[in-house]
Amino acid sequence: MMKNENTKNYQEMIKDIEFIVEIDKAKNILRQTYLTDAKRKENDAEHSWHLAVMATVLSNYANEKIDIVKVMIMVLLHDIIEIDAGDTYAYDEKAHEQKKIKEEKAADRIYGLLSKEKAKRYRQIWDEFEERKTPEAIFANTLDKIQPILLNNASMGRSWVEHQVKKSQIINRNENTKDGSFMLWDYCEKLIEENVKKGKIIDE
Amino acid sequence: MMKNENTKNYQEMIKDIEFIVEIDKAKNILRQTYLTDAKRKENDAEHSWHLAVMATVLSNYANEKIDIVKVMIMVLLHDIIEIDAGDTYAYDEKAHEQKKIKEEKAADRIYGLLSKEKAKRYRQIWDEFEERKTPEAIFANTLDKIQPILLNNASMGRSWVEHQVKKSQIINRNENTKDGSFMLWDYCEKLIEENVKKGKIIDE
Repeated sequence: MMKNENTKNYQEMIKDIEFIVEIDKAKNILRQTYLTDAKRKENDAEHSWHLAVMATVLSNYANEKIDIVKVMIMVLLHDIIEIDAGDTYAYDEKAHEQKKIKEEKAADRIYGLLSKEKAKRYRQIWDEFEERKTPEAIFANTLDKIQPILLNNASMGRSWVEHQVKKSQIINRNENTKDGSFMLWDYCEKLIEENVKKGKIIDE
Repeated sequence: MMKNENTKNYQEMIKDIEFIVEIDKAKNILRQTYLTDAKRKENDAEHSWHLAVMATVLSNYANEKIDIVKVMIMVLLHDIIEIDAGDTYAYDEKAHEQKKIKEEKAADRIYGLLSKEKAKRYRQIWDEFEERKTPEAIFANTLDKIQPILLNNASMGRSWVEHQVKKSQIINRNENTKDGSFMLWDYCEKLIEENVKKGKIIDE
């Protein structure tokens, strides 16, 4: 039984646990999407949990063969940078200019809490997610776009209505969503059309 | 591009998406643990997210070699049965008698929403988690026990104090926690001792 607190391994564990405790703050970062019951907004931890479940349950609908563990890590941790950088609403174009700088700084601090090798590894996975080039990053980004569509549809379009979202905005924002899964995007396109018909999304 | 809604694959996808939308309800099931800021209680989705991150970040401290994907699936989905069965507080012994029956019924309904093969596969993983025999189930259960200790410690023991929890209760409840990770349990034992000294946990 390992009980020596002075070993390198134990000291690394303490750092890793400090990271685990720090990221608890993601539970207080609200997004613009409402839960399916439309009663309150979703937070980053809930959103990331939902995406991780989607990563396993929906992985067979991905266009390419993917490493599921990597996708799960990507979606579980992609938003922890918002602990420092905050959430930027998808259709707030002005805020997006400053976003990248703030998020890089946040990633330096938060991933930097981990023990050395993990700090490097998890930061690389976040960078990979952000670059959207590998099959894993493409699928993870697809899930990240699809999940709010499912929730918005279930909550009678509450967030779309509140923000007066236009169909063209959703379509533009989702121009790459099909790259992760043609099937899932096909399903979402139908949901979007239904919500346009119901007047929840503006068709200009 | 797959656009035919009548294929078996597409019909299965619709079922899997319905499961994804249904489990959103886990975000409204409150646990007794407070977030690290001690301001509000944690819900099942947040808890499961936290455990899934722990499954990847802390896996090298497990006593045995484990299949990380399986552990992640276990912790992501272990509490969705509470959508129907509700949360049972760890130290409420009376409620635990009825718990198993309610949870089995809930598992039948909720995992049954998935397409056929997945319904079987994910239900089996939940059963495996509940049986606590495989290295994955043992480690997943260790994480499930350790996470509230980390949060209770960070929130100045608020939940322990509110429920007047005794040290012996925590120790009894955690008699198997070391089986998943000697190192992580060693760390938690120290936190428990510190909180006994601070008067947050009752030492009878």
